Amino acid sequence: MKSKINFTAYVVASIDGRIAKDSKSTASWASIEDWNFFQNAISKFDVVVVGHNTYKVSEKRLKKRNTIVFTSKISKLKIVGSVAFINPEKENILNFFNNHGYKKVAILGGSSVYSFFLKNKLLNNLFVTIEPYVFTTGVPMFSGNKFYKYNFLLQSVKKLNKNGTILLKYKYGN
Amino acid sequence: MKSKINFTAYVVASIDGRIAKDSKSTASWASIEDWNFFQNAISKFDVVVVGHNTYKVSEKRLKKRNTIVFTSKISKLKIVGSVAFINPEKENILNFFNNHGYKKVAILGGSSVYSFFLKNKLLNNLFVTIEPYVFTTGVPMFSGNKFYKYNFLLQSVKKLNKNGTILLKYKYGN
Repeated sequence: MKSKINFTAYVVASIDGRIAKDSKSTASWASIEDWNFFQNAISKFDVVVVGHNTYKVSEKRLKKRNTIVFTSKISKLKIVGSVAFINPEKENILNFFNNHGYKKVAILGGSSVYSFFLKNKLLNNLFVTIEPYVFTTGVPMFSGNKFYKYNFLLQSVKKLNKNGTILLKYKYGN
Repeated sequence: MKSKINFTAYVVASIDGRIAKDSKSTASWASIEDWNFFQNAISKFDVVVVGHNTYKVSEKRLKKRNTIVFTSKISKLKIVGSVAFINPEKENILNFFNNHGYKKVAILGGSSVYSFFLKNKLLNNLFVTIEPYVFTTGVPMFSGNKFYKYNFLLQSVKKLNKNGTILLKYKYGN
């Protein structure tokens, strides 16, 4: 897939690369500084993309903005207010973005949504906030059954607070 | 377990927290800058601890130094040259360190060895090198079947090279 749309993923993770306890939980452990950064950042996007689980845990907030929800449970596009439910295996999502004039797309997870954009070479920027915790288990940042080596270029490192939350900005490098 | 011994773990991982493709592979993708940092760092330790898989892929180098190999395959301590094979479920490892006068212990992985020290509250320092890759799958940094929230304090962030390899130094914070 080729595109002139800009796709930026936002991830908040533990030191050991976990983004949630399980598919039904939010990142309630994320710092307020990350939350503020994140809210400010996504306000500049035309639309956000989330998976069905992420949508369910943040429905109230996501309903208020242009949101695309990836789900395998439907076969045809379904639109409710500002929320579009799409099965990315059945629809051409680039057409959808183009038809709506979306130029700046924020990808908010979870793992399978991040992985979908990465595997389809549609991830331009990747912001990773690392909170100073180790969880030892939980939902991994990306999901896959084959080992890849996607290259990224580090653009900047920023300390967000005294506890040691750091924000890494990467550009896709392949 | 309480101890006056200093335990420091060294981890090299992808952005998504993977430390290897599988249990039989080395971190051949790690940067030369990380390798140099790591070799210099561990030269200052009395002994290093590795799991059986890690030992097998690095046996040649590890044989030359004081090495403890964790393995579940033996029930009694076995010593071959400078290498001690220990089943941490059967031996009191703190006694072993104390009996040998080991004050500075470097923990080199893999996941289950890092997790053993963390769960037993024996991890004082954690160095994590993040190489600018996403693997999507592979061996996770820590392993566990229960979700914990171990606190760490970030001590420093260092860029190791132009590609964007970064080195994070944490202190255990619980």
